[in-house]
Amino acid sequence: MAEETVKIPQATSKRLPLYYRFLQNFANSGKKRVSSSELSEAMKIDAATIRRDFSHFGALGRKGYGYDVDYLVSFFRKTLDQDEATDVALIGVGSLGHAFMKYNFHKNLNTRIVIAFDPKAPHEGNVVSDIPVYHPDMIEEKLTELGIDLVILTVPSRAAQQVTDRLAEVGVKGILNFTTIRLTVPPSIRVHTIDLSVELQSLIYFIKNDVKDSHL
Amino acid sequence: MAEETVKIPQATSKRLPLYYRFLQNFANSGKKRVSSSELSEAMKIDAATIRRDFSHFGALGRKGYGYDVDYLVSFFRKTLDQDEATDVALIGVGSLGHAFMKYNFHKNLNTRIVIAFDPKAPHEGNVVSDIPVYHPDMIEEKLTELGIDLVILTVPSRAAQQVTDRLAEVGVKGILNFTTIRLTVPPSIRVHTIDLSVELQSLIYFIKNDVKDSHL
Repeated sequence: MAEETVKIPQATSKRLPLYYRFLQNFANSGKKRVSSSELSEAMKIDAATIRRDFSHFGALGRKGYGYDVDYLVSFFRKTLDQDEATDVALIGVGSLGHAFMKYNFHKNLNTRIVIAFDPKAPHEGNVVSDIPVYHPDMIEEKLTELGIDLVILTVPSRAAQQVTDRLAEVGVKGILNFTTIRLTVPPSIRVHTIDLSVELQSLIYFIKNDVKDSHL
Repeated sequence: MAEETVKIPQATSKRLPLYYRFLQNFANSGKKRVSSSELSEAMKIDAATIRRDFSHFGALGRKGYGYDVDYLVSFFRKTLDQDEATDVALIGVGSLGHAFMKYNFHKNLNTRIVIAFDPKAPHEGNVVSDIPVYHPDMIEEKLTELGIDLVILTVPSRAAQQVTDRLAEVGVKGILNFTTIRLTVPPSIRVHTIDLSVELQSLIYFIKNDVKDSHL
């Protein structure tokens, strides 16, 4: 089937990496098939949502059989481009940035931080947690040299927009933004913002107001 | 008006802390009124969405005038319970946990980490970044003593469910989960999961597939 032409709704798209992880877990434990209710139990996602999502991939589980684990793993690997490594730059080695460097997405071997930038680093670079760190003056030169188009932004908020403008100039396509700033970017850049204070306040609000829904 | 009885849609609820932050910024800069398009520009949220959200709060902007900033700030403060401090426990002082302790949500003075737990800490506790850290054996005793019902979970994934089961026993109501595990919890606990690998993979997928939408 032609995966390239499948039109997948955005809400479904956001769940793809999660499906991929759980299906890998099932595959690693030797499971050959899995039902939507087993996935639902493991992932804490409504079984009807899973069945609807999977129908977009042409994976139509059979009653009393379920889904073919190997087929789905290979489908998700292909869809998520996991056969191809993705190099990421980290900008801002404060305590959060440092945590990312130590962690370095070791569960996803095909995505890794290969370079970092911080004002405390020298222009010629040094090495922290096995990753070379350069002075921010080197951003343009190094990102171009390495062909990196994905950045994790953990700079102080006051520096966020200025750095972003420079990233736009060198053709960065995606920013995972951990600052409290809502970045202004050209249409060529996609930003996902993870604002930890907002996440915490939102959880407090939901608890205090007893808002009902499933896991977010 | 009786805010207590306002029924606010969940998608709107998730944006409340963000509205609160930006309206505080406007108030701090001396602004008395703000239009939905100014908010839209600052927050990167569609102006129609903002107008629809605000209509739920009984804040009906007037054409050519906009919204009253002070009214909205006080409404959000009350709705988000920002007059009341919220104490949070952090479980797991690895590099990510340590980053949270150093940061400690200093932009939200009414929410703070007041205690942490880590296997490397002694039973009688020590102090890291001005926060007392105890051995995990002390979780039940300390959370009960301090009346804490909100936890940030940054333990290794293999320990996540076991710790969660213990939190359920002492009546914790909310968990901000940074592990890769989907936690099984009783209905009395609300979990928000922030899975950094999934966020990164999702951004990669959206870039490579050129999925169109606004900032997430």
